[in-house]
Amino acid sequence: MRIMVLGGDGYLGWPTAMHFSQLGHDILVVDNLAKRQWEAEVDSSPLQPLPTLRHRSRVWQEATGKQIQVAIGDIAENHRFVYDTIGEFQPEAVIHYAEQPSAPYSMAGRDAATYTQRNNVIGTLNVIHAMAKHVPDAHLVKLGTMGEYGTPNIDIEEGWIELEHNGRTDRLPFPKLPGSFYHLSKVHDSHNIHFACRIWGLRATDLNQGVVYGISTDETELHDELHTSFHYDAVFGTVLNRYVAQAVVGEPLTVYGAGGQKRSFLNIRDTLQCVRIAVENPADQGEFRVFNQFTEVFTVLELAEIVVAAAAKVGIEARLSHIDNPRVELEEHYYNPRNDALLALGLEPRLLSEELVEDMLSRVSRHAAAIDRETLLPTVRWRAGVPSLAR
Amino acid sequence: MRIMVLGGDGYLGWPTAMHFSQLGHDILVVDNLAKRQWEAEVDSSPLQPLPTLRHRSRVWQEATGKQIQVAIGDIAENHRFVYDTIGEFQPEAVIHYAEQPSAPYSMAGRDAATYTQRNNVIGTLNVIHAMAKHVPDAHLVKLGTMGEYGTPNIDIEEGWIELEHNGRTDRLPFPKLPGSFYHLSKVHDSHNIHFACRIWGLRATDLNQGVVYGISTDETELHDELHTSFHYDAVFGTVLNRYVAQAVVGEPLTVYGAGGQKRSFLNIRDTLQCVRIAVENPADQGEFRVFNQFTEVFTVLELAEIVVAAAAKVGIEARLSHIDNPRVELEEHYYNPRNDALLALGLEPRLLSEELVEDMLSRVSRHAAAIDRETLLPTVRWRAGVPSLAR
Repeated sequence: MRIMVLGGDGYLGWPTAMHFSQLGHDILVVDNLAKRQWEAEVDSSPLQPLPTLRHRSRVWQEATGKQIQVAIGDIAENHRFVYDTIGEFQPEAVIHYAEQPSAPYSMAGRDAATYTQRNNVIGTLNVIHAMAKHVPDAHLVKLGTMGEYGTPNIDIEEGWIELEHNGRTDRLPFPKLPGSFYHLSKVHDSHNIHFACRIWGLRATDLNQGVVYGISTDETELHDELHTSFHYDAVFGTVLNRYVAQAVVGEPLTVYGAGGQKRSFLNIRDTLQCVRIAVENPADQGEFRVFNQFTEVFTVLELAEIVVAAAAKVGIEARLSHIDNPRVELEEHYYNPRNDALLALGLEPRLLSEELVEDMLSRVSRHAAAIDRETLLPTVRWRAGVPSLAR
Repeated sequence: MRIMVLGGDGYLGWPTAMHFSQLGHDILVVDNLAKRQWEAEVDSSPLQPLPTLRHRSRVWQEATGKQIQVAIGDIAENHRFVYDTIGEFQPEAVIHYAEQPSAPYSMAGRDAATYTQRNNVIGTLNVIHAMAKHVPDAHLVKLGTMGEYGTPNIDIEEGWIELEHNGRTDRLPFPKLPGSFYHLSKVHDSHNIHFACRIWGLRATDLNQGVVYGISTDETELHDELHTSFHYDAVFGTVLNRYVAQAVVGEPLTVYGAGGQKRSFLNIRDTLQCVRIAVENPADQGEFRVFNQFTEVFTVLELAEIVVAAAAKVGIEARLSHIDNPRVELEEHYYNPRNDALLALGLEPRLLSEELVEDMLSRVSRHAAAIDRETLLPTVRWRAGVPSLAR
């Protein structure tokens, strides 16, 4: 199958590209490499220096004999590039990770908020227009986020809800309570893509993904230079990855507020599994399908406690510290999201275990000297973002 | 009260500015005059040539002794202008009409879709950031559209819905099924503004307005040059306004498809009444309030029949013609939107009557020679928009 991976330079995009290449598919990776600029802006770096995308593609070919094509360009700013690339490659599936992925980054003030929404929303609009023109039968697999739903007081269904109201019924989009300008951009995308399916008959799967953790996949293991862009900082690092880095350098694991915030989580290896399942079981023509992509629910405090326990087993004395919550979010709430769809299609979850955390601690420890402690604490506050940082 | 009217050069913005000025408020009108460019792009003009905004402001002062201040600038492209203007004027209410307002315009291809969403969404993001910084207690009165809801098979509540699901309850944003990239931009705005109310405690009223008709208000009557920008064409003209123009020039009233599409409508004079009610009864700090702003529901076929009947009374033999529906929409559907909130606050609807249509026919007839028949028929097709017009 011809598969395009948009955002293929990133934490999830690169392992996804290798995974599908390993399965024998024709892969074209697209990226504008902007994440490298955003990292520099907020003074953070991935745990290991990241070789260029084209270099990694060459290493991949040497290691496996398989080819990953690379196209460098900006899907939001250069629609001609999007049309040309899609028109020439004729993808059967387009996996779309090419968005600014950080909630804190989006909350640093007006510039960051408008940049995030323009980049994410316009990029996706370009992609759906180009697909409608050049590959109307292709399947769009779009990465959304469980954060689109927020924390409503009812069970969270998968994108849709059967409503009964005043004696009448309908199946309608599940109401959204996104928690940052980043999460809002994903909600906007979902509405736009749903509309494209309705009017043009595009087929799309919106993967509302939980918080990803983990540093390695089968393919990153094949060569030292095939590692992914692992972030541990407070802007681009996801929470478990950050806790692990904090434990490794002997800093307290910083729990935001009371820590009762429940979130859905999954292993990076299960990201690959879920995306593969979505691609191998495409949505119908005209269908806007939503899968909730996660395997487990924890509070952020529970997660910290798991890391403390695992650290103890490998001789690291980790401690946790509650700090003022920089975000505006409920710290005690109901949370019961469904994830039946991917399980029904064969997802076999790799649940979080102390062994996995021990393995992460060990891998991260090898690069402990590179960890910048200055980047571990939150600098962006949801309430204060505007007055202090608006430019 | 100090009131800013964003988009004050337009069909509704200008009459709104005059109305509040007449009531004794301090008015600052803001516009980038872009609508005049969009009109030229699609080869349409308002029924009467529109004097410049500053000229109309001078005429207003001569006619009434009252002042309407004018600031020319782009709220989407020039955030510095937004911050400076809001910071200096210190508005107590910001009435926000400053968006690309046409569904067909937004559906003409990729350029139009991305322009519409960037212009509308980024403009509103700039406004809420500037308000949070400079006037966090001011009341944002934002014009949305009933088209955000689409036509669900359940009663349409006012922005929110009390949900019971699996034995639990919550009050959540009403699910949206917007029908064009324009309508989608308003859904995105609603989510962004709701979030700003949640995290910064802004106060906002989202006015989900029906389709407006009418050509005159008390204030436009005061001087010949105080008329508003009345459009009758298939891109910027609302349906009743277009039907009236078609009747006047002896063209068939073009009903899209079967014509069973139910929509909510209101008189332009009731737009002013509703906005005044919203401003005089502000939302609470932190509240995101939604009013459905309309007075009646008709099918587009019923509306055509009303115009045919009114035309007959003034000696015009009008006929209607069903044409292929350029849009993707249900032509037979349930439609029961609520509009209790504005009624409870004192809205006194001016219902559509044959007399009102006769009056419109008479007013439009005076400018019959200026009506360009070429602009009456739809040129943009929802399904075909992409392949034919993507640039």
